[in-house]
Amino acid sequence: MSHSEGSNHLAAIILARGGSKGIPRKNIKPLAGRPLIEWVLGAVNDSKVFDSVWVSTDDDEIENKCHDKAKVFRRSAEDAGDNVSSIKSIQTFLEHHPEITNIAMVQCTSPCLQPWHLQEPARMIMNGDYDSVFAVTRQHTFRWKEIVLENGESILEPLNIDCKNRPRRQDWKGELVENGAFYFTSRSNILEGMLQGGKIGCYEMAATHSIDIDYPEDWQIAEMRVREFGYNPHGPVSNGCQKKRKKPEST
Amino acid sequence: MSHSEGSNHLAAIILARGGSKGIPRKNIKPLAGRPLIEWVLGAVNDSKVFDSVWVSTDDDEIENKCHDKAKVFRRSAEDAGDNVSSIKSIQTFLEHHPEITNIAMVQCTSPCLQPWHLQEPARMIMNGDYDSVFAVTRQHTFRWKEIVLENGESILEPLNIDCKNRPRRQDWKGELVENGAFYFTSRSNILEGMLQGGKIGCYEMAATHSIDIDYPEDWQIAEMRVREFGYNPHGPVSNGCQKKRKKPEST
Repeated sequence: MSHSEGSNHLAAIILARGGSKGIPRKNIKPLAGRPLIEWVLGAVNDSKVFDSVWVSTDDDEIENKCHDKAKVFRRSAEDAGDNVSSIKSIQTFLEHHPEITNIAMVQCTSPCLQPWHLQEPARMIMNGDYDSVFAVTRQHTFRWKEIVLENGESILEPLNIDCKNRPRRQDWKGELVENGAFYFTSRSNILEGMLQGGKIGCYEMAATHSIDIDYPEDWQIAEMRVREFGYNPHGPVSNGCQKKRKKPEST
Repeated sequence: MSHSEGSNHLAAIILARGGSKGIPRKNIKPLAGRPLIEWVLGAVNDSKVFDSVWVSTDDDEIENKCHDKAKVFRRSAEDAGDNVSSIKSIQTFLEHHPEITNIAMVQCTSPCLQPWHLQEPARMIMNGDYDSVFAVTRQHTFRWKEIVLENGESILEPLNIDCKNRPRRQDWKGELVENGAFYFTSRSNILEGMLQGGKIGCYEMAATHSIDIDYPEDWQIAEMRVREFGYNPHGPVSNGCQKKRKKPEST
């Protein structure tokens, strides 16, 4: 992307520490034949909206797997600890990169990300229309509030449903929830400790692309979903973006 | 279950019309080798908490597949139309069955249901402690409200999150949502047009058992999940309930 304002710099950052919990070595564990992190890296690079693309890691193997697809920011083991928040890690990164005015945190755990998912949010933030733009999806779940009575019993009250008039799914537009795929935000928001602040907008993704890997049980499902909905820069869904292909196809 | 009050009758009902939308013949489509409806029928029967177990259908093939595992209530084609609500169908059924005082609607689309999931809710409702008890699961999603401005732009406001202090999943107990597996309720609630009314309680199910089939894309995921988390009355998870086995195992 060529920016209208020359001094703006939009960076993408993927936080990929070596010591992941839940699923060991998650970030580079093969998902449908490719290291997890490569799925989003392909989408990020082929979106062509970023002035720089970074992987932040404390791990040699992750660095080696990514260095031909992104710049690598080496963070300290302390900065990759279990209790260091993503925002804190990005703050540390930005201290070393004063040229970056806006940043998108893209998460490995949303491997069905496509290049085009990133293009509209990049435009929204680089035009100055929004200070933060993040990925959402629409869910249709009926929520309930639990109230614990004095005698220890618990009762429920509906939060988003009229029990005498339950809507059918197709008659209800649902609710917007973060799907975790990405968070575009201004440098100043991060410095203030927020992924979302100022004028906040969203980019809606389909449920099929919103798969998230939170628990070990999610891995198999993610594998099935990326085969159908993941972005493969070398495959038929490449949309013409064939850079970084390593070898020609056999036919 | 033998009830303490002789006049109470707890029925289970599974609504299984022939003309399902989205996935054709969904209710009897084989899921991991068994017709979808058999997964929940096994759990319902082996829970041993119901005085009667019913399948309500307008379809001969569904009747034939179920008649050895449940009583069949034949409803008219009109009563199985696209626009007839579940509550209306259960009302029609109850008109023919004055003996039923409490009813549990169990849904085929939650094939990871286990017998034990039904036992505690049955106790809660048959003891007279609650008028309705339904299945919930806990979700950890950040919800946002979309506000459309006068100029047509849309902005977001957080509904359940402090952006300066995003909780980590493990530090947040999440929110209760219906998972759709079952709804126990009193006859009078149904007659008033409600699945949930009066004193309302819930039974919490793990996310792994809360898989729901809403869209065609969910089928493959459900298939994977039932292999691991579904209830098989004939298999090693049978918990000693070997009734209705059709043939001996080959070894």
